[in-house]
Amino acid sequence: MIGRLNHVAIAVPDLEAASAQYAETLGAKVGAPQDEPDHGVTVVFIELPNTKIELLSPLGEASPIKGFLDKNPSGGIHHICYEVEDILAARDRLKDQGARVLGSGEPKIGAHGKPVLFLHPKDFNGTLIELEQV
Amino acid sequence: MIGRLNHVAIAVPDLEAASAQYAETLGAKVGAPQDEPDHGVTVVFIELPNTKIELLSPLGEASPIKGFLDKNPSGGIHHICYEVEDILAARDRLKDQGARVLGSGEPKIGAHGKPVLFLHPKDFNGTLIELEQV
Repeated sequence: MIGRLNHVAIAVPDLEAASAQYAETLGAKVGAPQDEPDHGVTVVFIELPNTKIELLSPLGEASPIKGFLDKNPSGGIHHICYEVEDILAARDRLKDQGARVLGSGEPKIGAHGKPVLFLHPKDFNGTLIELEQV
Repeated sequence: MIGRLNHVAIAVPDLEAASAQYAETLGAKVGAPQDEPDHGVTVVFIELPNTKIELLSPLGEASPIKGFLDKNPSGGIHHICYEVEDILAARDRLKDQGARVLGSGEPKIGAHGKPVLFLHPKDFNGTLIELEQV
């Protein structure tokens, strides 16, 4: 069911410093910051040859990664995203097998303009998993 | 400098259950467990179309992921691995820029039989980064 690893998301306390580090110290291809007000984050995409890293920084007071950074002030890996072909079929299969889908259970439009869902980390080895329909 | 994302490593409390979940619930291609006594882990590789997930379980009393699982009993993302062409050149570049390399600073032979180094998570947004020469 799951396909490619679409991205690894890393929450960072200082987006400018983290972007500069990936560009200069690690020598990666780093994009410009993009505000995603609907998701409460500013995102920087790092293009690797086979997948992406997304650096996430809080945008606004209700940012979903604010609590994560309070607990992990240096930052940390926030989630991984797997691609699926049919997000509703994936959701139903997961729910049938007892996995919990976060929020309403209905897909939202994610930062890439595609339908996404998040799965409960307690059901997946402490790993927050995003599913994105591609 | 960094190339492909070689893998994402997830430490899991129950390797059999996690393998079954990736195979059956998430429908991924899951390999057989491999003991890596030199690294203190048993590993299960999950092949995605563009990269790998490595499920890690402690092997032996001195396993380097035992402390991580004590702190994160449900498991969690342990590290990410970026490929580099020349690990000594990468190390020297990183050290020149003030990043700390863990251990002796000399590459060891990793779980894939290739030279690896780990970078200090405090220097990289709370993310433990493995570099693997390919």
